[in-house]
Amino acid sequence: MPTIEGLRAAVAGERKQMTTQPNLRDIKAAHERISGYINRTPILTCASLDRMVGAKLFFKCENFQKVGAFKFRGACNAVLLLSDEEASRGVVTHSSGNFAAALASAASKRGTTARIVMPSNAPAVKVAAVKGYGGIITFCEPTHESRETTAEKVIQDTGATFIHPYNNYRIIAGQGTAALELMEEIPDLDFLLAPVGGGGLLSGTAIAAKGLNPGIKVIGCEPKNADDAYRSMKAGRIIPSENPNTIADGLRTSLGDKTFPIIRDLVDRILLATEEEIIKAMRRIFERMKIVAEPSAAVPLAVLLSNQLDVAGKKVGIVLSGGNMDFGRFFEGPR
Amino acid sequence: MPTIEGLRAAVAGERKQMTTQPNLRDIKAAHERISGYINRTPILTCASLDRMVGAKLFFKCENFQKVGAFKFRGACNAVLLLSDEEASRGVVTHSSGNFAAALASAASKRGTTARIVMPSNAPAVKVAAVKGYGGIITFCEPTHESRETTAEKVIQDTGATFIHPYNNYRIIAGQGTAALELMEEIPDLDFLLAPVGGGGLLSGTAIAAKGLNPGIKVIGCEPKNADDAYRSMKAGRIIPSENPNTIADGLRTSLGDKTFPIIRDLVDRILLATEEEIIKAMRRIFERMKIVAEPSAAVPLAVLLSNQLDVAGKKVGIVLSGGNMDFGRFFEGPR
Repeated sequence: MPTIEGLRAAVAGERKQMTTQPNLRDIKAAHERISGYINRTPILTCASLDRMVGAKLFFKCENFQKVGAFKFRGACNAVLLLSDEEASRGVVTHSSGNFAAALASAASKRGTTARIVMPSNAPAVKVAAVKGYGGIITFCEPTHESRETTAEKVIQDTGATFIHPYNNYRIIAGQGTAALELMEEIPDLDFLLAPVGGGGLLSGTAIAAKGLNPGIKVIGCEPKNADDAYRSMKAGRIIPSENPNTIADGLRTSLGDKTFPIIRDLVDRILLATEEEIIKAMRRIFERMKIVAEPSAAVPLAVLLSNQLDVAGKKVGIVLSGGNMDFGRFFEGPR
Repeated sequence: MPTIEGLRAAVAGERKQMTTQPNLRDIKAAHERISGYINRTPILTCASLDRMVGAKLFFKCENFQKVGAFKFRGACNAVLLLSDEEASRGVVTHSSGNFAAALASAASKRGTTARIVMPSNAPAVKVAAVKGYGGIITFCEPTHESRETTAEKVIQDTGATFIHPYNNYRIIAGQGTAALELMEEIPDLDFLLAPVGGGGLLSGTAIAAKGLNPGIKVIGCEPKNADDAYRSMKAGRIIPSENPNTIADGLRTSLGDKTFPIIRDLVDRILLATEEEIIKAMRRIFERMKIVAEPSAAVPLAVLLSNQLDVAGKKVGIVLSGGNMDFGRFFEGPR
């Protein structure tokens, strides 16, 4: 049962988080904290993609991260930062994607419970993944309102700490550790590209990259069909996407009030890729690199292959964000 | 122009090859010879596949080999063993698969020419791959006879050295280097599984593995729909497959007179996988390991997942042979 003190402490913790934008030191501390739990993912290169782009590409392969995506880094950081008392009450989030599985897995490693609010129409495969990691699912109606009220109800009932999938400084610091590892190994990158949805990965990436090398250009890569970051940067304020329709299902979310200011201040450009460009880039990664990239993870290469950015002869880092996708059509369709 | 001396030397070379079955020392020599040209491919593990099989699996990932398959190892060894005089006249083979591209690429690295005899109905993507590596294609009718006479004509016209895709001791020695690398890193394997088509990979694997550890069990893994190795082992003589129909396109070939005796003498068992089991195993590799395996490369895991072999608690090596496949249906089909 939650106590008044616990709820107060949780609220105070949230407040503390809200006022403290992470810096490079926080990302390094997060890395030290989570390094016994995460995979140090490989950095892969590919001569034929280098030739296509005309640059030297370094892919930080978070498809090989635990749970199949970078999301595990932030989830781990947030769960490990809970006080013992908070951990005894568990965590809660709303997500039907990679973050749900990541938080469930991270919570199980700490021996605590993750409660996941998922829409009733979530794909069975995602529900099974969360359950497989020991997450407890509470279904809601597939609306923003139902999601919020259901999460609040879970918090009221259990005293669980709410962990937002991206609009949370501890999550941002955790996601920045992928770029930290990449730049430890390849310190002289000229560019660093990461996909942008809610902005947790991009903001953490920008803090790490600019902290280590102020001269690096950090580029956010976004589906043209979910271009809220592009429009928000132009307008100087958050303009959410409305019902974005893109194959890059991890990037349908819009920037939050914690990710937007970091991106506005540290990211050099947001560039866009069409659906066709994203699919083509994903195919190139499958065919040339022989690895599985989910559509969201292919958006940076899509931007490069469409020649929007002059990278000729440069060293370009890419956060290949994840490899979770539904192969039903490929393996079950008619041959 | 070929000379009589050159043709005689080539024939003598072929004869020499025919009489000398490779041993572990030959495979080690091949490895030294080719190691500056090939990728030392990673050995990957996967906790969730380990749980499914109930053993500790070590995948030697030849999908990350140059040209996307182990075939590059043997092709490199054969091309590097040419005398300068032989190299000046080039090499020739008949193949419409991975070996064609591998030989073209290996020849280009030595600065010599690969002539590839391909059936006129070869897929455009395979033709493009060979041309991309600088191979010169001679088309033939899609029959065994036309293939042979066309290759002979090319040899007559050019003096090129014929390199059989698998029924060649230098090729066999090269293919054995994948198992050599695997067992250098994981010396205490209990089992080693490799797919079997023409038997170049399996025979080289068996020589390396039994040479390094006579107690290891070497298992050939074959599609049930192309089970010539299984039947040949039972009969004690080569019984070729006739028009085999399997998704594992790299394994439609039948054993040759150089690969069969090695396999008969050194391989412990041949086990079979159905088409459904192969597709399921391939899907597991995509979904769990986040890497691309061609159907042929998934056959050993298919055998393990169908519980034909008692590997409980054992260390099991798998040669994941390649990652070249046509993603057309996945990327171009209706969504």
